[in-house]
Amino acid sequence: MNKELMTARILEAKNAKGLTWEAMAQSIGMSPVFTTSACFGSNSLTEDKALAVCEMLELDREVADALQACPYKSWDWTVPQDPLIYRFYEVTGVYGDTLKALIHEKFGDGIMSAIDFEMAVDKEENPAGDRVVVTMSGKFLPYKKW
Amino acid sequence: MNKELMTARILEAKNAKGLTWEAMAQSIGMSPVFTTSACFGSNSLTEDKALAVCEMLELDREVADALQACPYKSWDWTVPQDPLIYRFYEVTGVYGDTLKALIHEKFGDGIMSAIDFEMAVDKEENPAGDRVVVTMSGKFLPYKKW
Amino acid sequence: MNKELMTARILEAKNAKGLTWEAMAQSIGMSPVFTTSACFGSNSLTEDKALAVCEMLELDREVADALQACPYKSWDWTVPQDPLIYRFYEVTGVYGDTLKALIHEKFGDGIMSAIDFEMAVDKEENPAGDRVVVTMSGKFLPYKKW
Amino acid sequence: MNKELMTARILEAKNAKGLTWEAMAQSIGMSPVFTTSACFGSNSLTEDKALAVCEMLELDREVADALQACPYKSWDWTVPQDPLIYRFYEVTGVYGDTLKALIHEKFGDGIMSAIDFEMAVDKEENPAGDRVVVTMSGKFLPYKKW
Amino acid sequence: MNKELMTARILEAKNAKGLTWEAMAQSIGMSPVFTTSACFGSNSLTEDKALAVCEMLELDREVADALQACPYKSWDWTVPQDPLIYRFYEVTGVYGDTLKALIHEKFGDGIMSAIDFEMAVDKEENPAGDRVVVTMSGKFLPYKKW
Amino acid sequence: MNKELMTARILEAKNAKGLTWEAMAQSIGMSPVFTTSACFGSNSLTEDKALAVCEMLELDREVADALQACPYKSWDWTVPQDPLIYRFYEVTGVYGDTLKALIHEKFGDGIMSAIDFEMAVDKEENPAGDRVVVTMSGKFLPYKKW
Amino acid sequence: MNKELMTARILEAKNAKGLTWEAMAQSIGMSPVFTTSACFGSNSLTEDKALAVCEMLELDREVADALQACPYKSWDWTVPQDPLIYRFYEVTGVYGDTLKALIHEKFGDGIMSAIDFEMAVDKEENPAGDRVVVTMSGKFLPYKKW
Amino acid sequence: MNKELMTARILEAKNAKGLTWEAMAQSIGMSPVFTTSACFGSNSLTEDKALAVCEMLELDREVADALQACPYKSWDWTVPQDPLIYRFYEVTGVYGDTLKALIHEKFGDGIMSAIDFEMAVDKEENPAGDRVVVTMSGKFLPYKKW
Amino acid sequence: MNKELMTARILEAKNAKGLTWEAMAQSIGMSPVFTTSACFGSNSLTEDKALAVCEMLELDREVADALQACPYKSWDWTVPQDPLIYRFYEVTGVYGDTLKALIHEKFGDGIMSAIDFEMAVDKEENPAGDRVVVTMSGKFLPYKKW
Amino acid sequence: MNKELMTARILEAKNAKGLTWEAMAQSIGMSPVFTTSACFGSNSLTEDKALAVCEMLELDREVADALQACPYKSWDWTVPQDPLIYRFYEVTGVYGDTLKALIHEKFGDGIMSAIDFEMAVDKEENPAGDRVVVTMSGKFLPYKKW
Repeated sequence: MNKELMTARILEAKNAKGLTWEAMAQSIGMSPVFTTSACFGSNSLTEDKALAVCEMLELDREVADALQACPYKSWDWTVPQDPLIYRFYEVTGVYGDTLKALIHEKFGDGIMSAIDFEMAVDKEENPAGDRVVVTMSGKFLPYKKW
Repeated sequence: MNKELMTARILEAKNAKGLTWEAMAQSIGMSPVFTTSACFGSNSLTEDKALAVCEMLELDREVADALQACPYKSWDWTVPQDPLIYRFYEVTGVYGDTLKALIHEKFGDGIMSAIDFEMAVDKEENPAGDRVVVTMSGKFLPYKKW
Repeated sequence: MNKELMTARILEAKNAKGLTWEAMAQSIGMSPVFTTSACFGSNSLTEDKALAVCEMLELDREVADALQACPYKSWDWTVPQDPLIYRFYEVTGVYGDTLKALIHEKFGDGIMSAIDFEMAVDKEENPAGDRVVVTMSGKFLPYKKW
Repeated sequence: MNKELMTARILEAKNAKGLTWEAMAQSIGMSPVFTTSACFGSNSLTEDKALAVCEMLELDREVADALQACPYKSWDWTVPQDPLIYRFYEVTGVYGDTLKALIHEKFGDGIMSAIDFEMAVDKEENPAGDRVVVTMSGKFLPYKKW
Repeated sequence: MNKELMTARILEAKNAKGLTWEAMAQSIGMSPVFTTSACFGSNSLTEDKALAVCEMLELDREVADALQACPYKSWDWTVPQDPLIYRFYEVTGVYGDTLKALIHEKFGDGIMSAIDFEMAVDKEENPAGDRVVVTMSGKFLPYKKW
Repeated sequence: MNKELMTARILEAKNAKGLTWEAMAQSIGMSPVFTTSACFGSNSLTEDKALAVCEMLELDREVADALQACPYKSWDWTVPQDPLIYRFYEVTGVYGDTLKALIHEKFGDGIMSAIDFEMAVDKEENPAGDRVVVTMSGKFLPYKKW
Repeated sequence: MNKELMTARILEAKNAKGLTWEAMAQSIGMSPVFTTSACFGSNSLTEDKALAVCEMLELDREVADALQACPYKSWDWTVPQDPLIYRFYEVTGVYGDTLKALIHEKFGDGIMSAIDFEMAVDKEENPAGDRVVVTMSGKFLPYKKW
Repeated sequence: MNKELMTARILEAKNAKGLTWEAMAQSIGMSPVFTTSACFGSNSLTEDKALAVCEMLELDREVADALQACPYKSWDWTVPQDPLIYRFYEVTGVYGDTLKALIHEKFGDGIMSAIDFEMAVDKEENPAGDRVVVTMSGKFLPYKKW
Repeated sequence: MNKELMTARILEAKNAKGLTWEAMAQSIGMSPVFTTSACFGSNSLTEDKALAVCEMLELDREVADALQACPYKSWDWTVPQDPLIYRFYEVTGVYGDTLKALIHEKFGDGIMSAIDFEMAVDKEENPAGDRVVVTMSGKFLPYKKW
Repeated sequence: MNKELMTARILEAKNAKGLTWEAMAQSIGMSPVFTTSACFGSNSLTEDKALAVCEMLELDREVADALQACPYKSWDWTVPQDPLIYRFYEVTGVYGDTLKALIHEKFGDGIMSAIDFEMAVDKEENPAGDRVVVTMSGKFLPYKKW
């Protein structure tokens, strides 16, 4: 079973049971972003978490195996087209130099890891319109000087 | 004076005075990300903030005018090449579907604004290696149904 | 049922019944552009509107569910090839700087939202040749200065 | 004098005199969009209008000649990057099929001309936030069947 | 029935009957280029012509309906690869500026329409090698100055 | 002297003398398209024609030498952006398969040469709007079967 | 039967019979490169050669018809990825200007035809390592000056 | 002195002296293709050859040094636009699979080296039109199986 | 049987038997990188090695034949998207000039062969975090000077 | 002083003094790859190393400052064109899946860091032709599971 089929099976079961990503994440004791990304095939779960997902969704062992496989990460469009995703691309473009300047100022020469990395999506209620709050936390990796 | 020359003049003065972006931002009472992005020509300042920047850096009126102009935002590479900036592109690619699923789950059909938007870069000290924490907050914009 | 299958089912029923987009839109009390775009899978309908579409076309619940799902918006060609669609791309290219200058002059630094947005297509009869009139209305979003 | 230098000279004079595009357009009796696009080098003016622009801005004959030259129209990025311009590209992508369906429904097989074409940008005041209203009017061109 | 299937059905029938495009065009009283392009799905026919094509090829009503549908025009390669088609792309590249200069010189600022347009392909016998003669005729469209 | 500088010198002299491409071509006894393309640096002239151009425009020997050099042919945009030139690209895209089918039907397997090639641009007066008539004539080159 | 299926059928029969391209070419009295390219669907054969191929491989009439059809030539990657094919692309890139200079020096302004063209692949035994010798011969086509 | 300036200096001297690439190559005892490519900056010469070129052209030591430097090889267009160079690209595209099949048939799994490589351009007189003969010879490199 | 199907069959058998690439490579007496790449269809095996793989995995003759076929090497994304693979692309980009300078300094004008080439992936245990050690060894190929 | 000018100054001085990258690296006690990449502007040096480079080359303080600045890393061609650099791109393409499979097999789900990374280029003498040995060592970064 490949990751695509795995995702289709999970989405079908999730919809049938009326579960949310938040609820699924809470139930297996992991964050919503990581849980969702694993179910979409962009990350891998440990065996116990994979089994927990499958138990909750009443899916069989094959899905659990697929959830543990190391994913091949890819995306469809070099420049994303969906407006929601494009805005993150736009932020990277518009603020790229700014992020670079501030991270170098605070940490020196290096980067924020996208591997030793976590992210959260929160809703901030606001009378002027609720806000989406996305928090990324990545380990600072200094360039090795050898 | 165009934005490029403006940035060059600001960087020169900033280096000469040994100022940091953090200090400059604090001094004019704005956030470090916004202040830096305005100095890089990706955002515009109001007149009083533009004058405050120029006073601090001992730069003339022309720079203050350029800081207030509406910027033409662009970036050099469709796929960014600098490793620090690329990692944000990678995050958008790898987690794009996840961000979409979670924002729709929490807010319904719509997007996070990249215009009514703010961002912070923080340093989280951590014995296993300090972490870069990037927080984005954008107004949720529901799709108008007309 | 995904959006593609949904669109195929709707087009088939619409052709069988000899309905126009205008008539369908009027019948559910929404605009022709929005109704059409939702049927093409580029926007989502509320439950009552989705049910109204399905009732009119004698389509089942699955189609109504698909009409309510948040769409993944994409298009086939980075530069559109169909001449009708290309002309809108050409207008964006030729008049992009002009739109930018005039919107900034009238509203300040910000953009026209493509989310809190509506559009109409009208026919203006004209002895020298009828004219296509496309009216876009999007909320002005000023850049947050934080 | 090429179009680029012409635009630079016009912008300089316009800023020095504190004129708006609206005022310039009104003064020469043409629409703001067309006047602005001609000054940016995307359209050509007739001799009398070109001279009127130059008189108003106290610019010499060379600028007037450049304003009358047939422009070579081009733009920098296949996919525009500036957020204001990008939103129009996004609208073309998301609503391309819808525009095609509705224009064909109302007019038959053909396209909206981008040459026998005019456009206006208006501000619609609105307590929930002012709106940008862009109106395009292009002659319908039916495909010749020969 | 979509245009692709329509084309396949027409080609099959045309081969079975040993017809040429020229003969088919003559039989329905239209030009060879237009007739061929409609059969390839790049143009639409009026009802009587569509029925005439189907009668000649003994194809059913569905094909006639597909021939009348407004086509979505597209092509496979941004830069065409087939040598015969590439040569036309090369001509556009090499002579683009020349075509622009001469059309502007003869007609003023405007373009040749590709919609109110017709084209013929002829064979000119020549002892030094026969020549392909392609004649394009498009209405001149002057830029509206509004 | 490279081709770019040569073109600039020719355009300057042509404008100063108020000459048209048609007149220049007639004067040297060559076609307008070829003459124009040689002056734009896309083709080379024989020595006598190059000298004739320079005499007419009162330009020196260096320009005549440059006119005789074999050109490096190139163009700026893979997909042309200027609307006049784009329409020819669109014609190639929309009618590519049709041109291929008809040339093969009339001539067999081979192509129209873009080298042993000539082209004319004519104005056809027409009460419904004048028409641009572009005639291409290229030698048919059959594929060698070896 | 399209060219792809034709190639599949030929390869299958060729493998089953243990034939080489060289042997097949010799048997039908044509060159190995041309024979191979026709079997891969990049060139067309005359009727007698097509029948000869089919007789040798015990394939039916349909394959012979497909071998005679004018091919639509295309390739998968704008920049080839297979190392063997890439090296020819690299040679074109590295030596393009050199080929241009030498052909112009020897022949004047024109090109080597890729249509009236033939090619051979030979093995040159060499104690320092055998060499691949590729010989291309194309008719020189001078630019028509009209 | 970089390679670009070196080439400019060599072309200027070559033109002034009325030398051909053939003559220059013969004079230094190397092949025309290699000599030309080194002068265009695509290959490097040994010291004695570099000095011989400079002596023949009366150029100074700096040019000889530049001729010996290892070049950074690049080309302007991913898909070449100049028709002469494009034809070689087309040959690679159309015959890529054929070259691959025949080289593998004759040599096994491996490639033709583009490094241990030589090429010649010859003129073959022919009453039906002279032919350009390009001969490439590259060492066969078998894939190491380790 | 094509290479894709071959890989699918091998992976299925490998998983069923719980074998590692290391173990498979050791068993057939070849390196892990080469063995893996052959099983993924990027390299070809000699007959004895192909049979050995099939025996170990209990796969039939068809798979062994496919393992011996010369592969068509390609990859999905011009810029790789999977983070693990992208890092190697990044290293090539960031260190390309450095690799070029050092190889030229040590070896003269030429390249490292990617054909007479081998590679190993090793794990270096390290208290600060284990390290991936990739060793490439390619024959130096000096540019032929002919 | 930007990195480009810095590199030019260093190369000039290095050539004037006849130094090698190896010698420079040894003299400042760092590896040749890192030293070279820092001098090419792809990495930054600590203050003492930057001063050591400048002392050795008799360059002033400005160069030392530039050597310490955090670099903006970029490269000219998405697909590298220089043959030496291209071969590393080819290796990444051909062996990408293999590297992924073996690293996951040895280390689990994660990547090789390109930041906590070092590389060496060595010459291995070999009677069959010297070999370039490139050794990369990057810290394994496991995906955080949060």
